[in-house]
Amino acid sequence: MEELKSIIRDIPDFPKAGIIFKDITPLLGNPKHFRKTIKWFEDSVEDLKIDKILGAEARGFILAATVAYKLKAGFIPARKPKKLPYKTISQSFALEYGTDSFEIHIDSIAKGENVLIVDDVLATGGTAEALAKLVEQLGGNVIGFRFLIELSFLNGKSKISKYDVKSLITY
Amino acid sequence: MEELKSIIRDIPDFPKAGIIFKDITPLLGNPKHFRKTIKWFEDSVEDLKIDKILGAEARGFILAATVAYKLKAGFIPARKPKKLPYKTISQSFALEYGTDSFEIHIDSIAKGENVLIVDDVLATGGTAEALAKLVEQLGGNVIGFRFLIELSFLNGKSKISKYDVKSLITY
Repeated sequence: MEELKSIIRDIPDFPKAGIIFKDITPLLGNPKHFRKTIKWFEDSVEDLKIDKILGAEARGFILAATVAYKLKAGFIPARKPKKLPYKTISQSFALEYGTDSFEIHIDSIAKGENVLIVDDVLATGGTAEALAKLVEQLGGNVIGFRFLIELSFLNGKSKISKYDVKSLITY
Repeated sequence: MEELKSIIRDIPDFPKAGIIFKDITPLLGNPKHFRKTIKWFEDSVEDLKIDKILGAEARGFILAATVAYKLKAGFIPARKPKKLPYKTISQSFALEYGTDSFEIHIDSIAKGENVLIVDDVLATGGTAEALAKLVEQLGGNVIGFRFLIELSFLNGKSKISKYDVKSLITY
């Protein structure tokens, strides 16, 4: 874990002044670290029965799709408005100024399917909460959340406290 | 192959009138088909030595990251301008009207590394060509391209004809 933490790069003032961005591209670019990361996701779900993994564009696709493959689950992409070609449902979430939303296809989850939500970073929890609502709108069970990184000082966990939430690395 | 072809959904007039979009989300959502697809990518590279897989945002991340994991290679994300946090190089490509560009981190590829470019669709070949130029700008070897789908009527292969190019499904 400390080894993975040491390979994640701090980028000051990205995307804007005052924010220290956690850059995971050195981790993804190194097969040993990438595989160790996916192994953690695999181990973290223990014997939970998981039908599908949900990941949000764009960075979220990287880990979520790979974890889906590893767990022999299906992959569901959540996308920004008008990016998905078929009929969708939508869920908005608050940004610092204004709102944005994510969509998923209406046939992406069958009633009663168990869905794990995977993302690289848990920050304020706004998008995480929106993703859970999308799953539940279609009658899916949110089996939990798994994050590579949790920025605990932003307290995002409080927004999804009723779910099983685990992170590999916490700052 | 016919089985995978049958699960890809045609969406008429997306993203605009006259275009029939090939929707691969039903394939990704089905673990059996998703795994069969990744197996094809794995088999298609035979005994090529591959250090890194390059994938472009957003949909390209899904297959490229999973193939990187499967081949024990590193993953490199190519992103739209200003999305990557560290220093980048950039390559523009033509759109129907105007241009757009992709960027990669300057330290994402070491000189002499073998890079396979993976994407879901080969259309006009404009972005594929730009991705190859990014790899070569950093001194990497483009070992080839692998696509889930080739829209052969758009003749994208002609733009990358000097490379080893394979596609699982051709329309």
